[in-house]
Amino acid sequence: MRSASSSPDADRPNEGVFALQDDDEQWMALRYDLTAPLARFAAQNWETLPKPFRRYAFGTVWRNEKPGPGRFREFTQCDADTVGSARPEADAEIIAMAAQGLEAAGLPSGSAILKINNRKLLNGLMTAAGVTDEGQKLGVLRAVDKLDRLGPDGVRLLLGEGRKDESGAFTKGAGLNAAAAERVLAFTAAGVGGRRETLDALANVVGGSEEGDAGLAELAAIDAALTGLGVGPDRALIDPSVVRGLEYYTGPVFEAELLLSTLDEKGQPMRFGSVGGGGRYDDLVARFTGERTPATGFSFGVSRLAAALRAANRDLTAQVRGPVVVIVFDQALMADYFAVAGELRAAGIPAEVYLGQSGMKAQMKYADRRLSPAAVIVGEDELKAGTVTIKDLDLGRELSRKVTDNAEWREQRPGQQTVARSELVATVRKILDAGS
Amino acid sequence: MRSASSSPDADRPNEGVFALQDDDEQWMALRYDLTAPLARFAAQNWETLPKPFRRYAFGTVWRNEKPGPGRFREFTQCDADTVGSARPEADAEIIAMAAQGLEAAGLPSGSAILKINNRKLLNGLMTAAGVTDEGQKLGVLRAVDKLDRLGPDGVRLLLGEGRKDESGAFTKGAGLNAAAAERVLAFTAAGVGGRRETLDALANVVGGSEEGDAGLAELAAIDAALTGLGVGPDRALIDPSVVRGLEYYTGPVFEAELLLSTLDEKGQPMRFGSVGGGGRYDDLVARFTGERTPATGFSFGVSRLAAALRAANRDLTAQVRGPVVVIVFDQALMADYFAVAGELRAAGIPAEVYLGQSGMKAQMKYADRRLSPAAVIVGEDELKAGTVTIKDLDLGRELSRKVTDNAEWREQRPGQQTVARSELVATVRKILDAGS
Repeated sequence: MRSASSSPDADRPNEGVFALQDDDEQWMALRYDLTAPLARFAAQNWETLPKPFRRYAFGTVWRNEKPGPGRFREFTQCDADTVGSARPEADAEIIAMAAQGLEAAGLPSGSAILKINNRKLLNGLMTAAGVTDEGQKLGVLRAVDKLDRLGPDGVRLLLGEGRKDESGAFTKGAGLNAAAAERVLAFTAAGVGGRRETLDALANVVGGSEEGDAGLAELAAIDAALTGLGVGPDRALIDPSVVRGLEYYTGPVFEAELLLSTLDEKGQPMRFGSVGGGGRYDDLVARFTGERTPATGFSFGVSRLAAALRAANRDLTAQVRGPVVVIVFDQALMADYFAVAGELRAAGIPAEVYLGQSGMKAQMKYADRRLSPAAVIVGEDELKAGTVTIKDLDLGRELSRKVTDNAEWREQRPGQQTVARSELVATVRKILDAGS
Repeated sequence: MRSASSSPDADRPNEGVFALQDDDEQWMALRYDLTAPLARFAAQNWETLPKPFRRYAFGTVWRNEKPGPGRFREFTQCDADTVGSARPEADAEIIAMAAQGLEAAGLPSGSAILKINNRKLLNGLMTAAGVTDEGQKLGVLRAVDKLDRLGPDGVRLLLGEGRKDESGAFTKGAGLNAAAAERVLAFTAAGVGGRRETLDALANVVGGSEEGDAGLAELAAIDAALTGLGVGPDRALIDPSVVRGLEYYTGPVFEAELLLSTLDEKGQPMRFGSVGGGGRYDDLVARFTGERTPATGFSFGVSRLAAALRAANRDLTAQVRGPVVVIVFDQALMADYFAVAGELRAAGIPAEVYLGQSGMKAQMKYADRRLSPAAVIVGEDELKAGTVTIKDLDLGRELSRKVTDNAEWREQRPGQQTVARSELVATVRKILDAGS
């Protein structure tokens, strides 16, 4: 989700960025993520911002990459970040926010989970194992990041001399000795369910190095704050196998994983994996100011999340209710129809006058396709009597499944009532409340 | 606001569009507006859409143009359109929506207005005046479009042989004879306040031609529907001088104009003009399907509107209230602070635990800068007594202006109260209600 590619990054400068020139041949780029722009904004406005600075952002980002299932060249991200707080509680709030975001997107406990790790643990472990070369450390991170795809045996090769894939291509390994590689693998497997239990297990693996102990203390503080915020291990757990690919993370990292079973386009089960991620990036703002500024955040891949929900057969858009439709029964009464729609809208009820030029049947079909809760009908009779006829379309749809005899149907006019015009809003609201 | 430049347009193909190539040298373009993509979508999905199809959209668009005050190369538009209804009432609904949109943006009656015209009037008038050449008609539209900038005398020249500007550059005119030019100018000046009165005045100028009469009938139907929708002439009037530059409009056109006095960057009064516009474009969908499909819509230039509000010294962001801030009084009580914030949030009250690492004074300053309505303080004493101390920051700000003596201030502790923990939400809500 996050990448520094649009900001100076020694490792992958500008890879994946779409760039173009304007008529004056000035170079411009489409933004790669929402994190680098935040870092630039915070750096430029640091003196005048209330600190810690918290912001959320929602918008389009672009990747100059080959698209694939759930991978887009243009997609929507939604980020939340806190800049200027080094507290682990700031990380915990971001994680809690992400958990609530998943819930709001229709992914409650059991259908998605936040996984938390801390870069400092693996760094501490490597230091304890005598690995001090930064390139070697990066190689270890990259190897562990492939655990999902290659399994422990593949990662063991990448931690050591290297690995030859099915095509015969050889990837050079991180060059750890066998004992160190086993220690890394033991570390990645130390997740055991409860957050406290995992922390205890991790203390046995990484405890002792200064950096590892610092990482454990941060995770313990995050655990306590999450508990205070009411986020249990069913929503957020500690998983030492989570790495997040980006180099700019400096401490805790987070990943949101879909747990629902998903199908690919051919109907085959597939693992969808991550729908968002984030972490602490205390050095990114410093690229613009030179001054270290603590920051932590999370990014939802909104387009990817939507694709995941579709793959899990949870299409949220199907649930959207349409407006109340005011039927055009008599062309001469258009002004009255607009007054009816206006009255409903003023009461906060979405409503519209049918604006096509078709008859009753087509209008009722339109209301049905819009998933309208009700249709309002006013003819000459209603106008004279000071009434409105209201059709409960939910009830109508339900009854139409039960009543099979056409004559019986006409007799009953299921879900239809004629009430005083002054009862319009109250009657429609009753239908809405019953249907919600 | 709207332009067909990103869709096939004989007049200005691709002018102003940002385009780039991907790694496979496939051309891509950044969208120029939200109307052409809607037309393409409607054309591709016409069979399966509930009709009329109504949609709104909000997003970024790009113009490869020289930027200037209130003119951006990247900006946000918000559009609403109805596709598949030829009814003037569909136009009226779009206009009413635009009027409500202005109101929601903080521009009530008197600070902005919708101006309505109909291309068919000027077309009818030209036909009646013997002008049948399409190029000549376009020249007349372009001349009238400059009325704001050049005034009637300048437009008279452009309607006739042409006009030399201050720099000596000559613009060829539409070539109307003097009588026809005067008729066009009389038409543009026929707006007289009330919508009905203007329609009557226009009937005298353009009445008689078939197209002009059709245009008048449409405007009369729009007027009636607007009245039914409760939109008076203070929000939307008929102004025959409105043209809208784009060629794709086929009937009614609308423009939202800011009426507030605005200042430029040097503090000089300036006319901001249009902050949005739209109209009926019955031929645009046909460019994709070949089949004429009636459509009407409106586009707010959101970035331009924001610039206009700033230029009118109406910065809406200044009004945004901050969250209730839970003060970190004692590091050991962080879990309790999160519980307090969680309780307030669960009650729908924005709240946050202060996440910096500064003392009381800095925390209160932070709450003040965030425009927080209240701060919650829990120390050892409150914890033991099962209470919370709540500071009403609005009241505090108010009293701090009155109380000048420091000792008196300390004595009174303005706006501060200690209540039972169970009264937390109710007490904070009382403060919020008093401040709103």
